[in-house]
Amino acid sequence: MLNLGILISGRGSNMESILKSIKKKKIPINPAVIISNKSDAKGLGIAKKLGVAVEVIESKGFKGSRTEYDKKIIKVLTKYKVTPKNGLVCLAGFMRIVSPEFVKKYRNRIINIHPALLPAFPGLNSQKQALDYGAKVSGCSVHFVDAGMDTGPVIIQAVVKVDEKDTEKTLSKKILKEEHRIYPEAVSLFARKKIKVSGRRTKIS
Amino acid sequence: MLNLGILISGRGSNMESILKSIKKKKIPINPAVIISNKSDAKGLGIAKKLGVAVEVIESKGFKGSRTEYDKKIIKVLTKYKVTPKNGLVCLAGFMRIVSPEFVKKYRNRIINIHPALLPAFPGLNSQKQALDYGAKVSGCSVHFVDAGMDTGPVIIQAVVKVDEKDTEKTLSKKILKEEHRIYPEAVSLFARKKIKVSGRRTKIS
Repeated sequence: MLNLGILISGRGSNMESILKSIKKKKIPINPAVIISNKSDAKGLGIAKKLGVAVEVIESKGFKGSRTEYDKKIIKVLTKYKVTPKNGLVCLAGFMRIVSPEFVKKYRNRIINIHPALLPAFPGLNSQKQALDYGAKVSGCSVHFVDAGMDTGPVIIQAVVKVDEKDTEKTLSKKILKEEHRIYPEAVSLFARKKIKVSGRRTKIS
Repeated sequence: MLNLGILISGRGSNMESILKSIKKKKIPINPAVIISNKSDAKGLGIAKKLGVAVEVIESKGFKGSRTEYDKKIIKVLTKYKVTPKNGLVCLAGFMRIVSPEFVKKYRNRIINIHPALLPAFPGLNSQKQALDYGAKVSGCSVHFVDAGMDTGPVIIQAVVKVDEKDTEKTLSKKILKEEHRIYPEAVSLFARKKIKVSGRRTKIS
């Protein structure tokens, strides 16, 4: 069975949805470790309650480069056997850009969820971007992480209708509901080795 | 009742779907004129059969500027009473960029359909762009035309699932089916004065 590491910065609601799916035996993967770059991340308590090991690698005040920070992450992942051979890394509200070295080492083994239908509205505040654009639909995308910003191959996308009355808050809530559905689904596909990546296109078998 | 002018370059299948909706009394608008920039556009024959006036303003070999060409279009539209006060202009596979002067004169009265969920995959070959990107969903967008490339306020968007087996041809076909549904719908909303534009956001009442 694969070992899963999840990187968080805050509440990690997507982390929670993944861990709960694992608990319900819906995903054949071992939840090895939750790593936060903030010691006060609420997700740490949630993970502990669910019986999963947690580690903090404080990024605030860290003096080294992004690559050096990520080396610390890789060290902890390795300690918990979340390796490029036998691991999967999920970003769940992890508010840091990962280094090209990390991406390269865990090639097609780091996945992220983005609250928009990529390539639309990449980067921060996607829901606000969608509202400001006047989009009639938006959604979320689970994708592999590559060296770019929200640019890796897409695994699953879910669509959400944008209503005229939607605010950033209501739209975020609707999208989050879909995130909690498709992120565990994508992890499950990965754990069961159902995803094939060919260039930018993924195939689900 | 408003007067409708439709600009085409080829078969104009969206033109046909709009004209047929008007015939079925589904849209309260007068189909005043079809203008093609190509004398051999197949849509001309289709429009004639449906009893709609056609005009050709050949763009091939036209020596003047884009603004000068568009002046000829405006002249013909005016002749058929498709005016900035009383008209609507639909682009239906019209393979020319319209000039800022034309857009300004007919502000929020020119609409277009684009075979993607804008702002994703603007410009040409959107279906191929979606496949190359590995998008899991795509669709089409009816939008007002502004001075940019596929950037005006969106009126309606429809979603289409991208299947792994999809080719440019099959995806285009699926999207076209949705185009033929939402373009007449948008024209109908416009004709019934149901669309309010506020900045980039449109409101349907």
